[in-house]
Amino acid sequence: MTGRDGGADLQPIGNSPVVVLVRPQLADNIGAVARAMANGGLFHLRLVAPRDGWPQERAWRTASGAQRILEALTLHPSVADAVADLHRVFATCPRPRHIIKPLLTPRAAAVDLRQICAEGLRAGILFGPERAGLDNDDMAQADTLVRYPLNPAFLSLNLAQAVMVMAYEWWMAADTTAPRRLMTNETRVATKGEVENFLAHLTVELDRCGFLRNAEKRPGMLRNLRHFFGRGEVTEQELRTLHGIVTELSRPARGGGAESRPQPLGTDGTTVR
Amino acid sequence: MTGRDGGADLQPIGNSPVVVLVRPQLADNIGAVARAMANGGLFHLRLVAPRDGWPQERAWRTASGAQRILEALTLHPSVADAVADLHRVFATCPRPRHIIKPLLTPRAAAVDLRQICAEGLRAGILFGPERAGLDNDDMAQADTLVRYPLNPAFLSLNLAQAVMVMAYEWWMAADTTAPRRLMTNETRVATKGEVENFLAHLTVELDRCGFLRNAEKRPGMLRNLRHFFGRGEVTEQELRTLHGIVTELSRPARGGGAESRPQPLGTDGTTVR
Repeated sequence: MTGRDGGADLQPIGNSPVVVLVRPQLADNIGAVARAMANGGLFHLRLVAPRDGWPQERAWRTASGAQRILEALTLHPSVADAVADLHRVFATCPRPRHIIKPLLTPRAAAVDLRQICAEGLRAGILFGPERAGLDNDDMAQADTLVRYPLNPAFLSLNLAQAVMVMAYEWWMAADTTAPRRLMTNETRVATKGEVENFLAHLTVELDRCGFLRNAEKRPGMLRNLRHFFGRGEVTEQELRTLHGIVTELSRPARGGGAESRPQPLGTDGTTVR
Repeated sequence: MTGRDGGADLQPIGNSPVVVLVRPQLADNIGAVARAMANGGLFHLRLVAPRDGWPQERAWRTASGAQRILEALTLHPSVADAVADLHRVFATCPRPRHIIKPLLTPRAAAVDLRQICAEGLRAGILFGPERAGLDNDDMAQADTLVRYPLNPAFLSLNLAQAVMVMAYEWWMAADTTAPRRLMTNETRVATKGEVENFLAHLTVELDRCGFLRNAEKRPGMLRNLRHFFGRGEVTEQELRTLHGIVTELSRPARGGGAESRPQPLGTDGTTVR
């Protein structure tokens, strides 16, 4: 469900950290924050003294279906009030100065937050206002700082983007998706025997048409073909297609002659049509 | 430099992948993409058939200082044209169907892209239009697919957020920031001897005031204090402050008496003032 119509039926997923927006300025960003939270499986949002008041219709537009998060958020007059019931408070902080606190990357913070929440403690993450970020008093309310290791030549990070990165890391910290796999859908990876069977078919036809007539080079050419087709990424369905291609190509042309052959591809990397 | 005024002096950082926006619809998003790219150290942007034409003034506003990326971008009539000079093409894809290709997480993709770029090859990443995403013909131009493992209950990912996650992973794949460290600024972590010295000072005063008068409990109480002050996260500066506090608290009150003592904190977690 993309939530473009009536909004997604979002629910809290387990015990997840509270996102605390401190003095946010733009309603657009509050909505975009809700959307990013939904993407990363976060649900609980608190606003500390939003500049233009609350609610704001623009936030519902940029939330893009994540309105359940906006409807459930709570308003707070101060950071102290917003974090009073939390056990652990993290604060995002691009340029920490004169502060003695543990400083984590978002990835390490997400691992810690998963652990804290698994223990049944309530955690929160503070994000500062768009222009100035958190001030020193805000950060003194946190026990841990989080700094994003991004391009030092361009540190201006949009508020919703900052929440997106943290929400993404929160999700990834519990995710078990294989880093890489071959998508095969209704088919499957071919067995070594199936690949060998195709290579035998190809070799017969290449011998017949004369492609392998140079006896000295023949073993190396066959080995190179085996390397190409044997990279572990060919499927049973693709092998059937390749069998068909070899069979058709090695048959005398039906109907038209040379004039019906397709034009070759250009050598400059563009398709010649 | 935050680039809020004249724009950041952005330059390409080494050999980095090209971001290809395929038929993007909203100029706001194109600008936000440029900003996210700058955050993650990407620079090369290509637009394939932007819906509302190009340039668009709104993009400059949301780029928030990353206009060098917008000024350097190139326009292309087709995906084939945009990728013709690239050696490897990745495509982001929320719901791949009927496609036989390697499928990577953004994290694994970033590691691969770093490797590809380190070998001097040119790589690109395709991002589809806001509403529909890449179509099957677009994805057939890619050699590798990237799927974000996010909340399956809310997959509607903003275009700039999708680029942000990929740019963030690109940066993180080469980043060497320690996952966690204690920020100490002008001071440093205290040595065990300095902690011990403070504990000795504290113990003398606690014995004198009678806090440790229960001889049976005294060893356990001292051990608990050693645990509290010995978690490896106290600095030399903080110990000096603690020495001062113990010294001052154990001195007979100067001037005012009991009536000048501060009120206690509330037990409900809020500050009593």
